Amino acid sequence: MLRTHTCGELNISHKGQQVSLSGWVQRSRDLGGMTFVDLRDRYGLTQLVFDMDSNAELCQQARTLGREFVVQCHGVVAERSSKNNKLATGEIEIIVEKIVILNRSEIPPFTIEENTDGGDELRMKYRYLDLRRSNVKANFELRHRMASAVRNYLDQQQFIEVETPVLIKSTPEGARDFVVPSRVHNGQFYALPQSPQTFKQLLMVAGFDRYYQIVKCFRDEDLRADRQPEFTQIDCEMSFIEQEDILAVFEGLVIHLFKEVKNITIPPLHRMSYADAMKYYGNDKPDMRFDMKIVAYKDESCQQFIIPGKFKVVDEAEYVGGIVCKGCAEYTRKQVDELTDWVKRPQIGAGGLIYIRYNTDGSIKSSIDKFYSQEELKTILEHAHAMPGDLLLILTGIENKTRKALSELRLEMGNRLGLRDKNNYSCLWVYDFPLLEWNEESERFHAMHHPFTSPKTEDVSLLKTNPGKVRANAYDLVINGVEIGGGSIRIFDKKLQAQMFEVLGFTEEKAQEQFGFLMNAFQYGAPPHGGIAFGFDRLCSLFGGSESIRDFIAFPKNNAARDIMIDAPSAIDETQLKELGIRTL
Amino acid sequence: MLRTHTCGELNISHKGQQVSLSGWVQRSRDLGGMTFVDLRDRYGLTQLVFDMDSNAELCQQARTLGREFVVQCHGVVAERSSKNNKLATGEIEIIVEKIVILNRSEIPPFTIEENTDGGDELRMKYRYLDLRRSNVKANFELRHRMASAVRNYLDQQQFIEVETPVLIKSTPEGARDFVVPSRVHNGQFYALPQSPQTFKQLLMVAGFDRYYQIVKCFRDEDLRADRQPEFTQIDCEMSFIEQEDILAVFEGLVIHLFKEVKNITIPPLHRMSYADAMKYYGNDKPDMRFDMKIVAYKDESCQQFIIPGKFKVVDEAEYVGGIVCKGCAEYTRKQVDELTDWVKRPQIGAGGLIYIRYNTDGSIKSSIDKFYSQEELKTILEHAHAMPGDLLLILTGIENKTRKALSELRLEMGNRLGLRDKNNYSCLWVYDFPLLEWNEESERFHAMHHPFTSPKTEDVSLLKTNPGKVRANAYDLVINGVEIGGGSIRIFDKKLQAQMFEVLGFTEEKAQEQFGFLMNAFQYGAPPHGGIAFGFDRLCSLFGGSESIRDFIAFPKNNAARDIMIDAPSAIDETQLKELGIRTL
Repeated sequence: MLRTHTCGELNISHKGQQVSLSGWVQRSRDLGGMTFVDLRDRYGLTQLVFDMDSNAELCQQARTLGREFVVQCHGVVAERSSKNNKLATGEIEIIVEKIVILNRSEIPPFTIEENTDGGDELRMKYRYLDLRRSNVKANFELRHRMASAVRNYLDQQQFIEVETPVLIKSTPEGARDFVVPSRVHNGQFYALPQSPQTFKQLLMVAGFDRYYQIVKCFRDEDLRADRQPEFTQIDCEMSFIEQEDILAVFEGLVIHLFKEVKNITIPPLHRMSYADAMKYYGNDKPDMRFDMKIVAYKDESCQQFIIPGKFKVVDEAEYVGGIVCKGCAEYTRKQVDELTDWVKRPQIGAGGLIYIRYNTDGSIKSSIDKFYSQEELKTILEHAHAMPGDLLLILTGIENKTRKALSELRLEMGNRLGLRDKNNYSCLWVYDFPLLEWNEESERFHAMHHPFTSPKTEDVSLLKTNPGKVRANAYDLVINGVEIGGGSIRIFDKKLQAQMFEVLGFTEEKAQEQFGFLMNAFQYGAPPHGGIAFGFDRLCSLFGGSESIRDFIAFPKNNAARDIMIDAPSAIDETQLKELGIRTL
Repeated sequence: MLRTHTCGELNISHKGQQVSLSGWVQRSRDLGGMTFVDLRDRYGLTQLVFDMDSNAELCQQARTLGREFVVQCHGVVAERSSKNNKLATGEIEIIVEKIVILNRSEIPPFTIEENTDGGDELRMKYRYLDLRRSNVKANFELRHRMASAVRNYLDQQQFIEVETPVLIKSTPEGARDFVVPSRVHNGQFYALPQSPQTFKQLLMVAGFDRYYQIVKCFRDEDLRADRQPEFTQIDCEMSFIEQEDILAVFEGLVIHLFKEVKNITIPPLHRMSYADAMKYYGNDKPDMRFDMKIVAYKDESCQQFIIPGKFKVVDEAEYVGGIVCKGCAEYTRKQVDELTDWVKRPQIGAGGLIYIRYNTDGSIKSSIDKFYSQEELKTILEHAHAMPGDLLLILTGIENKTRKALSELRLEMGNRLGLRDKNNYSCLWVYDFPLLEWNEESERFHAMHHPFTSPKTEDVSLLKTNPGKVRANAYDLVINGVEIGGGSIRIFDKKLQAQMFEVLGFTEEKAQEQFGFLMNAFQYGAPPHGGIAFGFDRLCSLFGGSESIRDFIAFPKNNAARDIMIDAPSAIDETQLKELGIRTL
């Protein structure tokens, strides 16, 4: 070894010891007769000292060390005269006796500090330097601890990790597959899995009982900031269970992770039906760190505004709903105007914003004062349980769109009121999702989760009469308004699976071609089974307090699905194309 | 849960308890008034009992259960009158009170028993049934335990697991890449990694210090029985180390695995230079479970046969070597003829076999009696340290080819003499591999390991004068004659790396295009580093006592790289091809 210790482990108890360290020059400072060098490795920083008086030549040598030079040094551990209690090694320094330059470094294109001066493109191009920054490296240590904690928990629960294939068969359902041309079978292609779904179900048919895998999956979508063409899932499946068993086992996993990784004891998870989530939060992944439920004034179940005949906008709207912003009665006109502009942005798309300010003195001021009396406004406020000091914000319009806009407004108010602290976690199960959703473009139903999700027993008969109303045995895990995982109890009956394919518009032939192997498997004693998959990148970024999953992926692709460090994708040789039996257009 | 217990956990201590079990009907037996059903799940078998006298209806129902039906049963644990001590649950049975058929099964195409009647193709097509067999399932439980043990050991050694990308850049060196056409960048392709080699080196440049990953890799080769297009590696890399450190850390891993997984304490690993392995075993991965070294009678260092001028075949051969088969003097003429035929097969390719039988009475009988006297034959025997009772087998010919043939003969004799017990393990480091090997086809040197392997410091100057003689800081782990892992100390100097690419026939331009990102990285303070990768599928099969890695891969491909269960690869839609900007030829 080119060291006896790492740069993170020496302390006062090592005083007087001869040691060797290796690492990178983080910075060096010349103070008259002394030169100080901070030596960095993965484990920490250690201060090296060179003294002009005792060894001028060595000190001169130290002064030639540039940033990011790789050096090995030998010396003695000494107590510092001025200690740095922010640093694990801050009580000591190394009186260096010999130094060896292992490798030199050009001046890096950005500084290797917590707050770097490198822009996104530059940092990605030199990702190997970006990863040297201690806060970035910490993300990967966190990720490693998370993976270990997941495995420990699932191992204890008798899950076994089984690797499923990466070169599989293309399926037209859902997002686009990446494909791999076959050299041996020209004209044919493998696909990269969007998830190991069918394989994990086959493992259940095979009697594996409890399966998991932390596994790379692939989706050829147009990328958004928080999507990557390759991503990692914690993929799980269990046999002989009901929905409640899955929720219990994986609630246990979530609690275990918070305890092991962050030492936070979280309470039992909230639970909410999809219908309630949409009703009260306008969203199937509500952020439960704060309450601020949506109050409906007019909707399907109550088709008349609370005080009708006064104001056309609310009387004629399909839907009217509001949220109470606690303690916001003191919002200035300017602040309310700003909110009005905010909801009118095309991303939100509201026509306008109604506000009713319930002043602490009991007086009321609103944007609809000319339509309603103070008494009537008070009735409107009380319907939403607003109290003096609160601000009621109301949106009107088409039901779905308005609920969505209210959801966005709620989140925005949560931000403005500081109710969405990233160090505060609120976990929620959303269940009873619809089985199907109508797709306007293809004019048919699509599976909301995937085609293997089972309908609720009591809703099966609706499959023929009103498929859109069928609820599924499907559930999502939502943490702080982010969908972290989702799963379902699967169909394990060949006939029901065939019916499902029919509803999804597959011909019998097409279903057989695509999923024949699964339906065949169901003939040979498939057990009741179900599972869940968690987005591991997102889970890590959530635990790491970051909005971006890229910070938790060592070598991510950019928004154009390109790795700008290695410059991939790139052209390949004509001979290779020929061998693969393909030609570029 | 559809059970209170699994089929593997009930014993006499549960006597009298009400339980529910779920599983598959392994077999059922009608014995007059009683019906016995063996219920199977991943964890074991439990006997269910139905009594015609006490519940005729239930007993009739049980008699309708076919093989592989999935059932749930409720009943009471009772002590068996005739116990089965081969079964964990053999002391008890369940007096069934209620049974629910969860799913029916067609008659499976082969029996779900340890020794099945299914052929290879059938078993692969119905892999989900093949995996139900307890011995097959045990392979995956072993694999899971192996992966856990690897992770535990490496975690303790401060390695962190980092996921490297799967969609990378194609490199022309070595075996063929699988490629993935890019939809966003038509005409460009990603490649699937043959190994994460460059990424793990970049992680070292990034200061990750100790990295590992259990990771899928891909190689588009024509398949042999023990190769798969996708395979799993334990991939590792360390910084600030020398070769000896790597050997020590991973020797520790091997010892840990044998102890944890098989409870075998293995001795410190053998070590052997590549030169010695070739000299004494004709092979860079000798099986060290038995000795039987090759004895050279004539080679580069001794260019004359021990007793010259007697027999043209040995006098004129470039190389003469032999092996002593202990206690084989009693081999019959028929046995020796059989061996002669064996070495003459095209796979071995020897011209013939010389034998000298050293009888226990001291007399000597050989196939070359007419050329040599008894005294001379004795001299030949003694050169090889043969003793009365032994059989000396000699091959002659071109050096490389003959060494290889002797290696094969040695292994064959090991088999015949029962010296290669699969429950006996002998582990070996082979080191000082050549850096380069000459490729006749391309008429240039290829990297024996890969282009990032460092030459031994004392041999660097030979790179210009005699590249074929340069030894590398490269090492292989060999267990029982199987190459389980290999690695090297890497080049970390940009200039040396450039020189290496030059020797390998890369133009500067091509090297820059392919590996520019790595050479750029080397400018910014690359630390000394090195690593190793183990073939995880093969390691598992070795621990599981199987010759075939397929038994340890849940869904393997066949020799034509086809998954016959899901029928992949397969054709894809024209629209998808168009989107990808490619056309099939």
